[in-house]
Amino acid sequence: MTETNPFRAVDDHARKLAYDLIASATFGALAVNRPDTGLPSVSRIALAMAPDGLPMTLISALADHTRALTAYPNCAILVGEPGDTGDPLTHPRLTLHAQAGFVVPGTPEHFDLRNSYLSQRPKAKLYVDFSDFRFVRFAVTDALLNGGFGKAWRLAPEDIRADQRTT
Amino acid sequence: MTETNPFRAVDDHARKLAYDLIASATFGALAVNRPDTGLPSVSRIALAMAPDGLPMTLISALADHTRALTAYPNCAILVGEPGDTGDPLTHPRLTLHAQAGFVVPGTPEHFDLRNSYLSQRPKAKLYVDFSDFRFVRFAVTDALLNGGFGKAWRLAPEDIRADQRTT
Repeated sequence: MTETNPFRAVDDHARKLAYDLIASATFGALAVNRPDTGLPSVSRIALAMAPDGLPMTLISALADHTRALTAYPNCAILVGEPGDTGDPLTHPRLTLHAQAGFVVPGTPEHFDLRNSYLSQRPKAKLYVDFSDFRFVRFAVTDALLNGGFGKAWRLAPEDIRADQRTT
Repeated sequence: MTETNPFRAVDDHARKLAYDLIASATFGALAVNRPDTGLPSVSRIALAMAPDGLPMTLISALADHTRALTAYPNCAILVGEPGDTGDPLTHPRLTLHAQAGFVVPGTPEHFDLRNSYLSQRPKAKLYVDFSDFRFVRFAVTDALLNGGFGKAWRLAPEDIRADQRTT
């Protein structure tokens, strides 16, 4: 039999693991509701860590997921990639439930995020200033951290922050 | 500037690529609507290919995504993992929009899927017969195939089938 309650009390180990999964994610799976039907969709997006420790992305207005986030800002992100070896379900991963916020070009916030993003993903300079690209920040409402079979934590927004890197 | 219409006409190359992405996926990202709020979530699930060429999974009733699929069968699956090298956004991936169907234990359908699943994932014999585990099939309604920057196709259910392996 499997355990009936797989969730553990949140501790600094869990917070650090969540931080590391966000910090090391260069991409993730973005779940949205489709703008036409409201039904689920999921796609791959590039990711970087914003200065506040939360994820951010740079996406094109031409993409389906951008239209979806415009219609329905509630979304979810999965980070923590298994790589090529071992059982993928034993590899730690993090589900972030979030609200997407589009960053207005030309603002100080855009300037700061652009610098931070390019420092992490220098090749994005090829398209970062295209007129159809926008930065999106993700404000986390709650999260599910899965450390492998039988190891799971439900995290609050305060568990997902830049200062978790020092704990 | 990027292209304003990145979608190409569906051809046998696209169908074969979609087939290969499903056939080679041992896991994927499952997008659902949360049972309590209806808002998006996303999690990692194990995957195998059912005899009809569509994906199937084996999931525990204890998992959040299982409760979500019970409440809202509409879901989406992302397959096509980038691996450890190269730009992850140039790697082909496939979004399947689908309806989840739970397979009733003890039926001939369950027997066939169990055999097929274990032939692809032999280690699952450790938990395949646990009372809280169920096979789920995914009936695809439409799909989005992304072959990398500027290469995308919208696929219909008839493009996602077992006989695409021979095209």
